[in-house]
Amino acid sequence: MTTSLLTDRYELTMLRAALADGTAYRHSTFEVFTRNLPPGRRYGVVAGTGRLLEALADFRFDDDDLAWLSQAGVVDRTTLDFLAKFRFRGTIHGYPEGETYVAASPVLTVTGTFAECVLLETLVLSILNHDSAVAAAASRMTSAAVDRPCIEMGSRRTHEEAAVAAARAAVIAGFGSTSNLEAGRRYDLETTGTSAHAFTLLHDDEQAAFAGQIAALGPQTTLLVDTYDVAAGVRRAIDVAGTSLGAVRIDSGDLGSLAVEVRRQLDSLGARDTKIVVTSDLDEHAIAALAVAPVDAYGVGTRLVTGSGHPTCGMVYKLVAREASNGMIEPVEKTSPSKASRGGRKTANRVTGIDGRSQSEVLLTGHEDAVAAWRSESGQARALQVPLVLDGAIDSRWTGPYGVRTAASRHERSRAELPRGARRLSDGDPVIPTVNIDLG
Amino acid sequence: MTTSLLTDRYELTMLRAALADGTAYRHSTFEVFTRNLPPGRRYGVVAGTGRLLEALADFRFDDDDLAWLSQAGVVDRTTLDFLAKFRFRGTIHGYPEGETYVAASPVLTVTGTFAECVLLETLVLSILNHDSAVAAAASRMTSAAVDRPCIEMGSRRTHEEAAVAAARAAVIAGFGSTSNLEAGRRYDLETTGTSAHAFTLLHDDEQAAFAGQIAALGPQTTLLVDTYDVAAGVRRAIDVAGTSLGAVRIDSGDLGSLAVEVRRQLDSLGARDTKIVVTSDLDEHAIAALAVAPVDAYGVGTRLVTGSGHPTCGMVYKLVAREASNGMIEPVEKTSPSKASRGGRKTANRVTGIDGRSQSEVLLTGHEDAVAAWRSESGQARALQVPLVLDGAIDSRWTGPYGVRTAASRHERSRAELPRGARRLSDGDPVIPTVNIDLG
Repeated sequence: MTTSLLTDRYELTMLRAALADGTAYRHSTFEVFTRNLPPGRRYGVVAGTGRLLEALADFRFDDDDLAWLSQAGVVDRTTLDFLAKFRFRGTIHGYPEGETYVAASPVLTVTGTFAECVLLETLVLSILNHDSAVAAAASRMTSAAVDRPCIEMGSRRTHEEAAVAAARAAVIAGFGSTSNLEAGRRYDLETTGTSAHAFTLLHDDEQAAFAGQIAALGPQTTLLVDTYDVAAGVRRAIDVAGTSLGAVRIDSGDLGSLAVEVRRQLDSLGARDTKIVVTSDLDEHAIAALAVAPVDAYGVGTRLVTGSGHPTCGMVYKLVAREASNGMIEPVEKTSPSKASRGGRKTANRVTGIDGRSQSEVLLTGHEDAVAAWRSESGQARALQVPLVLDGAIDSRWTGPYGVRTAASRHERSRAELPRGARRLSDGDPVIPTVNIDLG
Repeated sequence: MTTSLLTDRYELTMLRAALADGTAYRHSTFEVFTRNLPPGRRYGVVAGTGRLLEALADFRFDDDDLAWLSQAGVVDRTTLDFLAKFRFRGTIHGYPEGETYVAASPVLTVTGTFAECVLLETLVLSILNHDSAVAAAASRMTSAAVDRPCIEMGSRRTHEEAAVAAARAAVIAGFGSTSNLEAGRRYDLETTGTSAHAFTLLHDDEQAAFAGQIAALGPQTTLLVDTYDVAAGVRRAIDVAGTSLGAVRIDSGDLGSLAVEVRRQLDSLGARDTKIVVTSDLDEHAIAALAVAPVDAYGVGTRLVTGSGHPTCGMVYKLVAREASNGMIEPVEKTSPSKASRGGRKTANRVTGIDGRSQSEVLLTGHEDAVAAWRSESGQARALQVPLVLDGAIDSRWTGPYGVRTAASRHERSRAELPRGARRLSDGDPVIPTVNIDLG
């Protein structure tokens, strides 16, 4: 399996034109950033970096790919020859996966020849836009849940492969586990599951269903109690499982008041350690509203995998500097009024106050000596980019299960460092301002 | 590659419990439907059926799958033995891909043993929920565009594999082409592309970029004219390409007024056949607003792949009938107040008036003889379900490129048959009512 055709046709036709007019090998710098956070959001979360590096390892054009490109008339002979030998040999720096970001943060910087950088545009953006959108939503949900575990259960509400990526992104942003088995296998995530209404309906009655589940899975399982009548379901659950029942799940109705009633009933039946899991269209606001309810865990589906209203995060991949015909590296930028960009490679720093909290995102442009000098004078500035790929060599520590664990700790630390307002769920401005400084 | 782990853990634990208590082989009927259309939407579009059948062909548990399930402690020995031999041998009927639907329409009906049906839940819902959401948005866009072609360009705004599925769904709902190469290859779709700002910025100036593109791709290409100044860009484009230039693309600004100015400029330069392609956050409303502008094609990205505000369509997979312990097939339904369902297998019919337009969606329950009698008496009722899988044998005519073409024609015909109100973009009720009739 190659990943090279998960891309837009125009990348290959631009490559074809650039190979023909001699600009394909100009040294180029592309940056990935968002013009703005989604309306009202206070911070973003970088996710997908590990998946991007995994996909990059398979970014090559095999015989089947080349045959199709040729037959479809996408490229000419010269371009086919180039693609047959193609491997990305450039360099990629980026925010570590799990790091928070704000508007204009250069979350990824890709350098190399124009030819090798332009080919990655769609793949980079597909992965980062999707995964970061889910992670940003997940981070708000785990913020709202405070210490209660969140379980990712959204697979059925999104594309089957996006589901795997969404589970991974959710765990990076603090979810404890996922229902998705492939995500569990691929990234060594904890998988969890309860039971469905179908299992209860399959049996002649609820009693038989509960008995079957307890017999097979033991009393530590979670019984779904709302197929018919919740109070009767809870009574039956404890009748069948005893007071050591692991948990009950409520998937409908007014979850807050039901949780109170079910907790009271469980306690009165002596099942004080039986937990209550709630599911049913939860989002960060619903979770926050349940803070006072006796709920032990939240199962979140639809709103998580659809980014809680923002299913993509608007990242773009822009050429910010390139070698001109005279061999000089020059900043470049669009000047059309409605989508103007800022040229030149940015060096990103998170400036922290004496309270240890982030104060601003400082993006420096200018000569590297000046940037280094600024940094050495700014004791409280943390450099945000790290090397991910050096001259084509992928740093595998960011990939696989290890990459996910690293990203999850990074997110926890980065979020903890943000000003307290970051955890507010109401619409507002980004929690720290973006400051552009041109050092000349 | 198997698809069997693209699923939720609880399906396997329910299977385990059902195998243990003897209910796993009860004959069962599951239906896929939406409780409601997304708020304001007038109809839905079934999409993903072909992809589902393709995924079903790979739905088996290989040695790697089984080893992981065993090691992760998801299932016991008995279940592993069952899974090792598992192939779906049940029967699936459904609305043909591309067909329109409304609330409660049984878009898919899966029958077989509980064991084989329950395992498909997540895969079925992932595919249908995603693809149908994109197709519903696409259908509104192509409605609004009337005879002007729509080009799918959203790959960068969604998961890289979801992008392929989105391109496919868009074409089913009337898009003419896609920028996504893998979608072009996999489903034999027409791929198109223009050029990016990066290509212009790569060159020393716009003139050099245009010259390079024209030299490589010929004058029939599309030049992107808004990197610096649109009027200057258009003048340069015709200078370089001549009046036989294929098209110019505008990707920013007030597209309506810019299109008028650019059309006037192109005409005055003698480039009367040069087309104007517009892109930049288009959705069905923006497309409708551009109806009076001299635009020749719409490139649509973000809003298409995110379902234009409804990135998933809320389809559920519910057990509606099953064999009881006495061997009788019985309808089953949840009775909890907030998510009650309606038991029994539904037979779906689209009733048409004398004007040839759809009038209602009639869902029949009851004995098959009574259903057949109702149908033979209702001359104007079209049966909506067709066989897709019979005793495990997949009808491959619904898959691959042929399936996509069939689905696209089905969508065109089905939409044309809906009442005229179906094409209204404003929020409103479903365009035809759902009528439930129990024939006893």
